[in-house]
Amino acid sequence: MNNRLQKFMDWMKQAGVDASFITSKENVFYLSGFRSEPHERLLGVLVFQDKDPILVCPALDKEDAKNAGWNHEIIAHSDTDRPWDLIENRVNELFDQINVWAVEKEHMNVERFEELQSRYPGSQLVSAEEKMKVLRLIKDEQELEILRKAAEFADYAVKLGVEEIAEGTSEMEIIAKIEYELKKKGISEMSFSTMVLTGKNGASPHGNPGSTKIQKGDLVLFDLGVVLDGYCSDITRTVAYGELNDKQLEIYNTVLKAQLAAVEAVKPGVKVSELDRIARKTIEDAGYGEYFPHRLGHGLGISVHEYPDIKETNDLVLEEGMVFTIEPGIYVPNVAGVRIEDDILVTKDGYELFTKFPKELQYVK
Amino acid sequence: MNNRLQKFMDWMKQAGVDASFITSKENVFYLSGFRSEPHERLLGVLVFQDKDPILVCPALDKEDAKNAGWNHEIIAHSDTDRPWDLIENRVNELFDQINVWAVEKEHMNVERFEELQSRYPGSQLVSAEEKMKVLRLIKDEQELEILRKAAEFADYAVKLGVEEIAEGTSEMEIIAKIEYELKKKGISEMSFSTMVLTGKNGASPHGNPGSTKIQKGDLVLFDLGVVLDGYCSDITRTVAYGELNDKQLEIYNTVLKAQLAAVEAVKPGVKVSELDRIARKTIEDAGYGEYFPHRLGHGLGISVHEYPDIKETNDLVLEEGMVFTIEPGIYVPNVAGVRIEDDILVTKDGYELFTKFPKELQYVK
Repeated sequence: MNNRLQKFMDWMKQAGVDASFITSKENVFYLSGFRSEPHERLLGVLVFQDKDPILVCPALDKEDAKNAGWNHEIIAHSDTDRPWDLIENRVNELFDQINVWAVEKEHMNVERFEELQSRYPGSQLVSAEEKMKVLRLIKDEQELEILRKAAEFADYAVKLGVEEIAEGTSEMEIIAKIEYELKKKGISEMSFSTMVLTGKNGASPHGNPGSTKIQKGDLVLFDLGVVLDGYCSDITRTVAYGELNDKQLEIYNTVLKAQLAAVEAVKPGVKVSELDRIARKTIEDAGYGEYFPHRLGHGLGISVHEYPDIKETNDLVLEEGMVFTIEPGIYVPNVAGVRIEDDILVTKDGYELFTKFPKELQYVK
Repeated sequence: MNNRLQKFMDWMKQAGVDASFITSKENVFYLSGFRSEPHERLLGVLVFQDKDPILVCPALDKEDAKNAGWNHEIIAHSDTDRPWDLIENRVNELFDQINVWAVEKEHMNVERFEELQSRYPGSQLVSAEEKMKVLRLIKDEQELEILRKAAEFADYAVKLGVEEIAEGTSEMEIIAKIEYELKKKGISEMSFSTMVLTGKNGASPHGNPGSTKIQKGDLVLFDLGVVLDGYCSDITRTVAYGELNDKQLEIYNTVLKAQLAAVEAVKPGVKVSELDRIARKTIEDAGYGEYFPHRLGHGLGISVHEYPDIKETNDLVLEEGMVFTIEPGIYVPNVAGVRIEDDILVTKDGYELFTKFPKELQYVK
């Protein structure tokens, strides 16, 4: 039994959960080591307190699951099977009764929930999500190694993008070049849709890149990340093309100051809310409070946005092994948009930055 | 009221549904014209039998929703709001009681379902999904125009890929080039992860492209599509690099024959199952039945895989305006994999192919 499954089973005992059915692809990957996109097909891990877990997957994926290291039982279903029948039959062989099931209530859809309810009408259905979030919160060495490498690719991607900046080049052309070069290095998936926003476009925290061309005097914002071996990176940098005006510089320097202050505060024992407060206060003191409308950051790992939210109302205490982003921003409509984002690990007595692209304002001539 | 909303409201009246909350981004787009990725935030359309619908969206998206043409009420929620409170308050202003709610049970997660249940404890929750599927099944002229253009881009993408085929070029390099050129033409999103599989890799219907290099004598399989204005295309072509052996040729010609036969059979009044049967029989008669393990195709529109499944057990009758794929394949491990896929529209008295890249075996020298 791997360590992650064992911890989850320990929780089930404590919580009085007889059986769990974990079906989000992220949590299946975390517990089983098997990474797969099942689309509408049923994929999941059945976990019990004292019996071996069972992987449920499409028959097409069975060999891949074994190759990924799954050495427990597999219920493989073809498109003509009724996977819920297979599950019910097997569970009924193992147990006389299931009083409490745990499922991911933020992930599982109502149809599947009703299916489970109808097959175990007397049983209680509780949420497994909180426990999975907490398990995934502290990264192990193997995960950290991958996250470091994923961040290296993010740095490289920003470098590629900055090199493409030139008068008249469009946002989309730069994105095309970045992803082209990454694909040639074997990166087949980005963490999210790559964002390159120039000039006024950068002043929308929600901007969509398009055919806008870069002009002298623009701030150019890059927000991107890669997926490497199932883990995500996420970086934002904002660079100058040509000379900036005083307002742009003031905004940049305010964001940088806020970002550095929050980063410097990272160490075990500090509250998440404190980080947000530090960055937000810096920005408020400079008079830009209303232009920083989002949380400071988010957890990072198998999902690009995962637990915890780095925000004012979250009093979670930092612990060694947590990885998250710190990404304050200021967006003044029709003036400038700046965001600076790092991926950061809480270490024993401080922090380690995974993203290393320079944060002092970079000028492209 | 737009036509789509009106039809949905008509269904609600017939079905005795007092209120619907449609929350999948695809169906929100279909009903409202507003296309958005809300991530974990709440996005949805509240629809009632005789009152104006209400869009629920993150505050950040409010202007975009108006710009997309939504001219009814909007409940915009910021990250500090409790959106369910806002919804409940507004609904309670409009109605004394809601006896029946409709939601998308295949989409809505358990958490949201329980939220709705707890706020309307006496009411019944039924599925809106079947009706939405049927509404989306018949495409209107505006949708067809976009789907045609999306297919043109798919043809163009295959052409780009075929031009890149050369001794020693890897699958991933070709994908990089295709997506690079598409991005420069303004295509920012593919329908799914682009597949280029060469030689033995093509013999897995589930293959993952990687660093495998193309060699003389390979069949090279392309499966890809683009998203254009919210609508998807999906094409598969398999081409030859250098000379093929007799077995490869036999497999190719069998798939082609099956594909053409199924396409030729498309017209209003024919059953979906009949199309699958025609293609499957052709492949079985050639002795390859066991190597065609998947359905013949799938509906195509806002989603790349949507209702209906084109499969043996689906007796849905074709009607003018349906759009779907026809994509038989043969995958003989360690020998060859061939799939040929078109996007096809059922017309008044036959069909129109949207994808036009040649299907006679193309040789790259």
